[in-house]
Amino acid sequence: MKPFMDENFLLSTDTARTLFHDYAEKTPVLDYHCHIDPKEIAEDRQFENITQVWLGGDHYKWRFMRSCGIEERYITGNAPAKEKFFQWAECLGKAIGNPLFHWSHLELQRYFGYHGVLNKNTAGEVWDLCNEKLSQPSMSVRNLIRQSNVTLICTTDDPADSLKWHKMIAKDPSFDVQVLPAWRPDRAMNIEKPDYADYLDTLSEVSGIKILSFADLKEALKKRMAFFASMGCSVSDHALEYIMYAPADEAEIERIFERRLQGQPLSKEDGLKFKTAFMLFAGREYARLNWVMQLHYGCKRDNNTFMFEKLGPDTGYDCINNYAPSSQTADFFNALICTDELPKTIIYSLNPNDNPAIGSILGCFQDAAAVGKIQQGSAWWFNDHKTGILEQMVSLASLGNLSGFIGMLTDSRSFLSYTRHEYFRRILCDLIGTWVENGEFPNDADTLREIVTDISYYNAVRYFGFKL
Amino acid sequence: MKPFMDENFLLSTDTARTLFHDYAEKTPVLDYHCHIDPKEIAEDRQFENITQVWLGGDHYKWRFMRSCGIEERYITGNAPAKEKFFQWAECLGKAIGNPLFHWSHLELQRYFGYHGVLNKNTAGEVWDLCNEKLSQPSMSVRNLIRQSNVTLICTTDDPADSLKWHKMIAKDPSFDVQVLPAWRPDRAMNIEKPDYADYLDTLSEVSGIKILSFADLKEALKKRMAFFASMGCSVSDHALEYIMYAPADEAEIERIFERRLQGQPLSKEDGLKFKTAFMLFAGREYARLNWVMQLHYGCKRDNNTFMFEKLGPDTGYDCINNYAPSSQTADFFNALICTDELPKTIIYSLNPNDNPAIGSILGCFQDAAAVGKIQQGSAWWFNDHKTGILEQMVSLASLGNLSGFIGMLTDSRSFLSYTRHEYFRRILCDLIGTWVENGEFPNDADTLREIVTDISYYNAVRYFGFKL
Amino acid sequence: MKPFMDENFLLSTDTARTLFHDYAEKTPVLDYHCHIDPKEIAEDRQFENITQVWLGGDHYKWRFMRSCGIEERYITGNAPAKEKFFQWAECLGKAIGNPLFHWSHLELQRYFGYHGVLNKNTAGEVWDLCNEKLSQPSMSVRNLIRQSNVTLICTTDDPADSLKWHKMIAKDPSFDVQVLPAWRPDRAMNIEKPDYADYLDTLSEVSGIKILSFADLKEALKKRMAFFASMGCSVSDHALEYIMYAPADEAEIERIFERRLQGQPLSKEDGLKFKTAFMLFAGREYARLNWVMQLHYGCKRDNNTFMFEKLGPDTGYDCINNYAPSSQTADFFNALICTDELPKTIIYSLNPNDNPAIGSILGCFQDAAAVGKIQQGSAWWFNDHKTGILEQMVSLASLGNLSGFIGMLTDSRSFLSYTRHEYFRRILCDLIGTWVENGEFPNDADTLREIVTDISYYNAVRYFGFKL
Repeated sequence: MKPFMDENFLLSTDTARTLFHDYAEKTPVLDYHCHIDPKEIAEDRQFENITQVWLGGDHYKWRFMRSCGIEERYITGNAPAKEKFFQWAECLGKAIGNPLFHWSHLELQRYFGYHGVLNKNTAGEVWDLCNEKLSQPSMSVRNLIRQSNVTLICTTDDPADSLKWHKMIAKDPSFDVQVLPAWRPDRAMNIEKPDYADYLDTLSEVSGIKILSFADLKEALKKRMAFFASMGCSVSDHALEYIMYAPADEAEIERIFERRLQGQPLSKEDGLKFKTAFMLFAGREYARLNWVMQLHYGCKRDNNTFMFEKLGPDTGYDCINNYAPSSQTADFFNALICTDELPKTIIYSLNPNDNPAIGSILGCFQDAAAVGKIQQGSAWWFNDHKTGILEQMVSLASLGNLSGFIGMLTDSRSFLSYTRHEYFRRILCDLIGTWVENGEFPNDADTLREIVTDISYYNAVRYFGFKL
Repeated sequence: MKPFMDENFLLSTDTARTLFHDYAEKTPVLDYHCHIDPKEIAEDRQFENITQVWLGGDHYKWRFMRSCGIEERYITGNAPAKEKFFQWAECLGKAIGNPLFHWSHLELQRYFGYHGVLNKNTAGEVWDLCNEKLSQPSMSVRNLIRQSNVTLICTTDDPADSLKWHKMIAKDPSFDVQVLPAWRPDRAMNIEKPDYADYLDTLSEVSGIKILSFADLKEALKKRMAFFASMGCSVSDHALEYIMYAPADEAEIERIFERRLQGQPLSKEDGLKFKTAFMLFAGREYARLNWVMQLHYGCKRDNNTFMFEKLGPDTGYDCINNYAPSSQTADFFNALICTDELPKTIIYSLNPNDNPAIGSILGCFQDAAAVGKIQQGSAWWFNDHKTGILEQMVSLASLGNLSGFIGMLTDSRSFLSYTRHEYFRRILCDLIGTWVENGEFPNDADTLREIVTDISYYNAVRYFGFKL
Repeated sequence: MKPFMDENFLLSTDTARTLFHDYAEKTPVLDYHCHIDPKEIAEDRQFENITQVWLGGDHYKWRFMRSCGIEERYITGNAPAKEKFFQWAECLGKAIGNPLFHWSHLELQRYFGYHGVLNKNTAGEVWDLCNEKLSQPSMSVRNLIRQSNVTLICTTDDPADSLKWHKMIAKDPSFDVQVLPAWRPDRAMNIEKPDYADYLDTLSEVSGIKILSFADLKEALKKRMAFFASMGCSVSDHALEYIMYAPADEAEIERIFERRLQGQPLSKEDGLKFKTAFMLFAGREYARLNWVMQLHYGCKRDNNTFMFEKLGPDTGYDCINNYAPSSQTADFFNALICTDELPKTIIYSLNPNDNPAIGSILGCFQDAAAVGKIQQGSAWWFNDHKTGILEQMVSLASLGNLSGFIGMLTDSRSFLSYTRHEYFRRILCDLIGTWVENGEFPNDADTLREIVTDISYYNAVRYFGFKL
């Protein structure tokens, strides 16, 4: 029996151990997609207690506690921090097979030096230890990033954002990790939202272009893209219901946009046409700017109205939407490539059943513009667990070029979650190690080192073109 | 090489063996969903021969024999019992990788004490042995249940059923296993069926409420629910094409219902609206009664008209229907929870591709009403095999709370199939054992015992609230 | 650590090794579905260099090179053969986890006697070795087939084909491997194609029946089927978007056909109705002729217009289409079986998510006409890798009769790809070996030999009824 989560956690062969300890473990972290708040970096936030860090905003943990039948007051409610932590500890102690169990213990080991098991019996000692640690300067946000060997972070930002925190961080010579904005124009696309017109007002103001037509909107966005580019941005991101393709001519899009501004109702079909036009515009601009286009799809959000009215969005009430016709996805990319305007693209579906279709789509649009120009993103959100990570890589390897994979990202709001890169790398090294031990791939140290460190870090550096 | 199906069958590690033999194996069985006939328990049926037990009604075996090219007369036809058994034995001998191979041999081992391999060479000795055994009083239906360590059984019953056999069993002090009805109102919902009006007549008669409107139907069903509740029922079950959500107002539903009673044709859309209204009514009643709502979906039935005309339904001609939009499933639950009327619910899809979507939906509707209030049911029907059982648990663990899982059921018409609980528990213990041996979960005997026995039995006891 | 791809490649247990080396390895190859050009057999083509063999038409390799960011001139362009090979070698050296890595090295081992690793460092020695070998008479097309222990090959042929190369091969006493045509009438079905009317002209001419109606088309096809049958054909093949069922009466089909001949536009629905009628006609004829119906579906082709205009079809720009409603598939088979006119059928989906639905559909239509009358084809195209092959077999075993499986085919344009049968057999033997070593199936040599050799070869011989 292997010891519980020791240094060889998830590494089942000698080759896997060598690959991880000699190569992967020593390689820096490039976190090209996350949801951390740049303000907290700028201000170098320090946390008060482990409940604040772990349960302050982590809907993964909230969902798990609800699945254990815990009262909401211990989750998002007014219960004292210590009581919340004790409830969490009891839940975690039985979270067998759930990634939260591994993530939490990796964080306890790496950031708090705790190598025991957190459960109802140990909740007290962990509470004391973590809080004592958190009060030390070494546990400030910047120091957490530094000790995680992170070289660059991309946040997720609205086109109307002033990026003032990014500016502040960039100007501060005492912190040499790059913190770059990423362009996420969902609010400019989601024409069906009640506050869409309000958002256009904001965007008009920020861009200096009064938005009265789709053409105006595009102009305003181009101005903002130029600003983002000036701030070092080279990555975009979109949340889509699915990667749709409902083509319409410019005049029809303008009519849809006009009707929306007049407050007239739009059909589902109108919405799809508008979004298709929006995404074609966006993709072409990214190609022109040499930005990367990230597409996240397959999520149905805010499914529990009873709780939404109490807690709002991003509180643990989202699920997988399994409608995503691969034919439209292929047609969308084709619409961009037929004029040679397809940017570098990363595809993430929340539905793991999409792995094979995505893998087969990648291959239709690759060219010499980049190694793995069209990427399948690493296992996202509900798939970010041992099985999901493994299956994404096996699928990608079977259908495409795993050695060109740009690898992991945290997608997180937490400064402790860089251990997810470690988790991913352990699974990667174990997979490759198993292939080598089984005689399925040669035991050639140079090639293996290159593959492991490329997927861990260097592929992403080259792919995004970051200057490090 | 491990011996063929010995006491450590499917248990690949020492930890798995300890978990199974020390905990799982000794834990009682609660069979909360099956299709056995309560009349056979009431009358304590004794079987004449192994063909009657095994091939009398088991469409799993019939399908397999057809896949081997066996003539139908040896399957459902008039061939002598012994010849049928010999044909089956020859098929089984080559059923490598099929769950029938394991189920049949577990039944031979546990109920008949036969530890050899059944195939064409051994058919004669097994025929003699089984029939000799079956003639003994120890092999009556009640004794089979007793020796299987079963404490409670839920059958599957129509709202119009008199439950006379349940009454008879309950009154009989010589049999202390609870046999409770479960409410399955499919015939009251399936408005498109040719015999729907006839069924309403039956229900009118039994309930004493003349059903002329949807409102009447609901009243009649409420009366029958009250009767079922008085008989100890706390579990419902529905067979759905998919978990649909096509909302309509009460007046429209009444118009659809009226048109149906007048014999006018209904559109597919009318049917979906009616069924949505029916299911919302049912769900709210279950919430009020604190019943559990089981939803089985993803099946397309009676696909072979040529054979249907000869053999009727449930004869091995059903398949997976892969249309099941998760967005509608989430919307249906939301419609119940937005007024806080969502009952405890168990979701079963026949399509294993639905595992991730289901796992993500569960988490949207959990609350403190129960541990794992919304459950994913164990691998159902075409998924009830080693891979399917394992994948359902890994998916559930990755996305939710495996330790709160209510575990296995037989879903069977046979009194020998309690060994499927054993089969499930072996797979469960092997999964958990592997995690522990790999250092992925602590080797803490108390926690492991609790998890294993809870999933095997105690979670279900608590979840359904049975008095045992 | 096992040596890299030695004689026990993919065979992880002693049982697996015995099964492979004692049984599977010695069994002949029946390649019942491929895309090789019979002209090359008739003329006994000899290749000039390894680039011609490997990169001349293999879109799997082209896709992989594009995924590595290689310039198109080294892929399908004008770069010198040696430079192309060196680019390929460098890509292959990092193709970890991709089936191309294993396929290429199996071909190097079996046909060229090279047991090293092909990568950028060894490209030169492999280039020299392969080209030297290819110049030898032993490497002619016929000798490659002979040394691969192939007994029969089915090509893929249009109904209008004269089959002149098949005739020539059949008459040649110096080559005793049967090379039979297979009937692939896609062009007669694809009514939406721009060149449909032209194709009908060709078919009119070849068949001697002037095609002015759907009835005429059917007569012409029946004449061509009779000709194909006279040439030894007993296998058909269809490429379908999905297995659709959109029934319409004969008069409506004739009206659709007439409108098409008049150059009027057809709706998507018209096309589905026509194709359904076409497939019902075809299926009934196959049943009458005792032909096997192969159905390949789930592919969306030619997705990259930019490259299509340069390179045409079958150049690596196809992907999985994930729309395939299982309900229509079942209804289509039911429409044939309700009049007892369902032929032997092999179902292949490009989407591996369809495995469970297919497995459940098979069982609805089996009967005593053949062992496994309705087959799930082995893992096709994008699924033809270690994981895909394994998952198809585990799914088939779990849901049906693996021991009756007709096994592997190359589906290839290459005369070196018979090693894919070896690859498949290694995976098969490893799967069965693992089950036996784990005590999940008895270690009975006779049964295991029968299962392994049947799946490798003899099931296909019996299923298709070839005279060997």
